[in-house]
Amino acid sequence: MKLDARTAASLGVQARLANYARCLDNGELEKWPGLFSEQCLYKVTSAENHRRDMPIGLIYADSRAMLQDRVSALREANIYEGQSYRHVIGPTTILNDPGAPVLEAETSFVVVRTMRDGQTLLFASGRYLDRVEVSAEVGAGLFREKIVVCDSSRVDTLLALPL
Amino acid sequence: MKLDARTAASLGVQARLANYARCLDNGELEKWPGLFSEQCLYKVTSAENHRRDMPIGLIYADSRAMLQDRVSALREANIYEGQSYRHVIGPTTILNDPGAPVLEAETSFVVVRTMRDGQTLLFASGRYLDRVEVSAEVGAGLFREKIVVCDSSRVDTLLALPL
Amino acid sequence: MKLDARTAASLGVQARLANYARCLDNGELEKWPGLFSEQCLYKVTSAENHRRDMPIGLIYADSRAMLQDRVSALREANIYEGQSYRHVIGPTTILNDPGAPVLEAETSFVVVRTMRDGQTLLFASGRYLDRVEVSAEVGAGLFREKIVVCDSSRVDTLLALPL
Repeated sequence: MKLDARTAASLGVQARLANYARCLDNGELEKWPGLFSEQCLYKVTSAENHRRDMPIGLIYADSRAMLQDRVSALREANIYEGQSYRHVIGPTTILNDPGAPVLEAETSFVVVRTMRDGQTLLFASGRYLDRVEVSAEVGAGLFREKIVVCDSSRVDTLLALPL
Repeated sequence: MKLDARTAASLGVQARLANYARCLDNGELEKWPGLFSEQCLYKVTSAENHRRDMPIGLIYADSRAMLQDRVSALREANIYEGQSYRHVIGPTTILNDPGAPVLEAETSFVVVRTMRDGQTLLFASGRYLDRVEVSAEVGAGLFREKIVVCDSSRVDTLLALPL
Repeated sequence: MKLDARTAASLGVQARLANYARCLDNGELEKWPGLFSEQCLYKVTSAENHRRDMPIGLIYADSRAMLQDRVSALREANIYEGQSYRHVIGPTTILNDPGAPVLEAETSFVVVRTMRDGQTLLFASGRYLDRVEVSAEVGAGLFREKIVVCDSSRVDTLLALPL
């Protein structure tokens, strides 16, 4: 049985997202900017702002260098040490032609946060709207764009780590 | 490497379920009835009632027209506007012969609800027991039957939207 | 379009994990030990202990027989009846050569618990570090090793069922 192009593309983006989530959840924050292309768009926004097409979100970066700065700031502030995150992502849907050089994809996520005292809380839910470069190596394509649309608009007051 | 028939069938149903969840989570409720065949069974029940084989669940519909009526009622009551849902589904297991024209599948889910004030709550967990028509187009096969077995029997008092 | 070896291996382990979770979530606890090889390692630990390489975790078993004893104890204590669990797992990443006879894999999970009174709580989050035998039949390879790394170290006081 052959694999159709749409499913193959979807599995490729899933592998990329699995690496993305492992990087954040396993404390390898320094690897995170390297998952994006040098010129990129990373934005965290709320469903309401996304619907209204408000340009600036809770977090906004348009280059890998800006993401690296963010990581440095988080490390210096020691924010990263007091808690841990766990992303669970659902299946990925490809929104454009699966043969395109940059895939457009949508994936639901839930993020759970564990505090230093061991308490586990539902932290955020939403969907990733990604533009991912196609790569010959599985799960290796860079993110050209990642728009994180959070279901809640209250996530901003809590946000420390990338989603 | 070739894809075995069971895995291929499982990925096909996953794609269908991903579309199903996107439809509910992204507010496209009007598209939801069209994911079912004209004659269908949609039932939301609890694990306890399912085990006892109680015929009627929390929601029961046996045609696409009944599902359309439900959508109209939800829109008129304005229930849909005050909250949003996020489904995260796990991998799909095919329970029958993967070469059959209607696939029987089981898939775990968790649904998180975000209220108008931004609060995010764990809303429901359970499993989908689906009978899905096989389609040449990925993710396009209609649901002949969808039994939503909720882990909790308390979900009924809260239930507004389809699961 | 062909399926690359890494993605194929990942889907094989996913199918195995889906069966694993269904077994625990659907109350078929007696089938659970049969998913492991006779000589195996099953360990539940916290992220902190795992990082420090502490050998003994919250649960430790090194044979299928020990897992069977655990199931008997749970059944006799009637612990299993008062609650239910729901695992939702994310995509699986293969960590070693996908052509190896035993695959090493990492998979994030969230487990939700429903109490007898219908209340649903976030129970645990973390990741599975698995060593799974490759099998000709999809989803049938046995676990040689399963290390369950919980994000929280508070899960111990609550732990009754296998994760």
